Amino acid sequence: MKTVTCTAPVNIAVIKYWGKRDEKIILPLNDSISFTLSQDEMCAKTTVSVSPAFSDDRFWLNGKEESLENPRVQNCLKEIRRRASKRKFEGYDEDILNWHVHICSVNNFPTAAGLASSAAGYACLVFALGQVYGVEGDLSSIARQGSGSACRSIFGGLVRWYKGELEDGTDSIARSIAPADHFSDLKVIICVVNADRKKTGSTDGMRRTVQTSQLMQHRVKESVKSRIDSMMEAIQEKNWSSFCDLTIADSNEMHAVCQDTFPPCVYMTDTSHAVTSLIHQYNELKIAQGDINHKVCYTFDAGPNACLFVPGAVAEEILAILLLAFPPDSSETPDEYVRGIRVKPITLSKELMSLIDEDVKSGRLKYLIHTKVGDGPQIIRDAAFSLLDQATGLPKSAGCIS
Amino acid sequence: MKTVTCTAPVNIAVIKYWGKRDEKIILPLNDSISFTLSQDEMCAKTTVSVSPAFSDDRFWLNGKEESLENPRVQNCLKEIRRRASKRKFEGYDEDILNWHVHICSVNNFPTAAGLASSAAGYACLVFALGQVYGVEGDLSSIARQGSGSACRSIFGGLVRWYKGELEDGTDSIARSIAPADHFSDLKVIICVVNADRKKTGSTDGMRRTVQTSQLMQHRVKESVKSRIDSMMEAIQEKNWSSFCDLTIADSNEMHAVCQDTFPPCVYMTDTSHAVTSLIHQYNELKIAQGDINHKVCYTFDAGPNACLFVPGAVAEEILAILLLAFPPDSSETPDEYVRGIRVKPITLSKELMSLIDEDVKSGRLKYLIHTKVGDGPQIIRDAAFSLLDQATGLPKSAGCIS
Repeated sequence: MKTVTCTAPVNIAVIKYWGKRDEKIILPLNDSISFTLSQDEMCAKTTVSVSPAFSDDRFWLNGKEESLENPRVQNCLKEIRRRASKRKFEGYDEDILNWHVHICSVNNFPTAAGLASSAAGYACLVFALGQVYGVEGDLSSIARQGSGSACRSIFGGLVRWYKGELEDGTDSIARSIAPADHFSDLKVIICVVNADRKKTGSTDGMRRTVQTSQLMQHRVKESVKSRIDSMMEAIQEKNWSSFCDLTIADSNEMHAVCQDTFPPCVYMTDTSHAVTSLIHQYNELKIAQGDINHKVCYTFDAGPNACLFVPGAVAEEILAILLLAFPPDSSETPDEYVRGIRVKPITLSKELMSLIDEDVKSGRLKYLIHTKVGDGPQIIRDAAFSLLDQATGLPKSAGCIS
Repeated sequence: MKTVTCTAPVNIAVIKYWGKRDEKIILPLNDSISFTLSQDEMCAKTTVSVSPAFSDDRFWLNGKEESLENPRVQNCLKEIRRRASKRKFEGYDEDILNWHVHICSVNNFPTAAGLASSAAGYACLVFALGQVYGVEGDLSSIARQGSGSACRSIFGGLVRWYKGELEDGTDSIARSIAPADHFSDLKVIICVVNADRKKTGSTDGMRRTVQTSQLMQHRVKESVKSRIDSMMEAIQEKNWSSFCDLTIADSNEMHAVCQDTFPPCVYMTDTSHAVTSLIHQYNELKIAQGDINHKVCYTFDAGPNACLFVPGAVAEEILAILLLAFPPDSSETPDEYVRGIRVKPITLSKELMSLIDEDVKSGRLKYLIHTKVGDGPQIIRDAAFSLLDQATGLPKSAGCIS
């Protein structure tokens, strides 16, 4: 039996992926750029074992056995095995390719948060499979076939997913463009919104946008292309102010083409917009103070949760503002409400206090996650952390929970 | 003394005006098309008197004396006088141009409704001034200088505002394109949303969109142009289904470019989106039943209120659905909640009942206005309805309320 355990991170796009040119092997209409988040607060974890003793391929996800029929999982598995068959295994019998595989995966973050768990999940799956089968070279184009944005979770820091030109998708890969500490001491605050809106899944949503939105044509042909160039420049020059403006503009453009879809796909709620309004007011104050390096930017995926990128120096004051502007429901303690990296409470200046509406409503946010940017997938060498029992190849606990 | 009293209607654009190419004389970036609403439920009313006995130009709006310094009112007044000076007054001394003017205006609909009161107001002002000074020819280009969309309230039924090409705006005029009964028995339901969002005024909003939205360029250069052509075709062919789809698409495109603005202009709320979602579900049911002539369309101006165009045959069921999906606050009786044209309560089919969420919240809408499409400005010949006292030239009651 050969076993590998890995963790993989969530990533948040600052130039958005919205719209496929190929639905089957998941090829995007445009390049995208993302920040990989620290695995301290959120990650997917996967153990993959292969053994001549296994009678079937089996898959457990978050404690429940799932069918491996899922075409996206199948795509990843087949492609990994195809690549593996091309090379000789050092120290292993080549029969490994004929052995069955057991996969056990968990996400350590609540799916209710509506965060891109599939990106971390497929990146983790493909990275672990790659390790087990000794696949070398690019793994991002395989992860992409599980879930498009998963290809970006194969790397840490700032990552660019090149849309590619080829029909077979071999050039539609992700690459690291800057390490996690490129913008030093960068924090991330995720505002998890209390919302009961029935949302359109992102696969259906982007398909509908491509089919019905006229503005989407302009996004793909013009604006996102030039914004990618501007963003690369902002990153190379470490121009944080420009990075913020471009991130905000691209999030809003994506939600604009969603609104322009027939019927419209609406992901942001009144609370989402209240967060953006607060951030714009905050930034205007920073601009007025000539302090543009401490601007904050927001971005929204296909859901209501705001993801804020926050310079470390102002993370405490941003958290304090959010706590006052979006107070928790009375049933929550501040420690339950602000999760992740601990901060000391601070007193806000009069100027910052003036940003907060007089009639705040509690309970608009479920909670805040305070985290930072981080590195790519990790191999966990300590067998104690394996999700599969090394004797049986079955999940260690009934719950398969790490 | 010469006195004229007029009323003028509200209009609701189905192809939106959003963005000026000239801020001073209000020239739009694109053509727009609107429906004029019946004056039974909502209208502006203006009495204009001129007299050699008046010592000043004076202006009362909704019971309060206002300064006539307002440049938009001044623009209208100057342009009317300039045009009047070009012709001879039959039966009047030409000195009328040297007499001072008293203007008294009221809106008979709550400004809180966020409805385009300025369009009706300026159309009424210009129409009344035009009557007093005997101005012939197009008045829409004068009303336009008060408030852009006011030019469309100069006519009834379906109205097109041609953006024009000339710098002086003389070809930026509105024209009637079809009478009020073009689509027979058409009803209008306005869902007035309970919202406390601080909104960006439309003048500021559209300026910001023009300056910052890349998608707006595509709207102006491409999509709204072709949509105007398609809409003219749908109107000429009385293709109600196509009219509905185009109206919905253009409203969503306008709100998309607002979302794409930096910082974004967000006018629709969660409740607005809940109304659109209900209408799309209703239309899908009608399409499934092969009954596309009874589709309903929605459109939103720069505010949260939904304006629905509803074939008369389904107006009762749409009102019944809205009452169930958006029940009034307990303090409101159904008669206070559904204003305007009375309807009999009906029982909904099981299919229609299935459109309504199980967990409805009351109080999301302030009230509904049930009205219909209608004609252009009217002259009120009965002096009893004049807002100005014929002896003094001053408002009849302290409130100047009709």
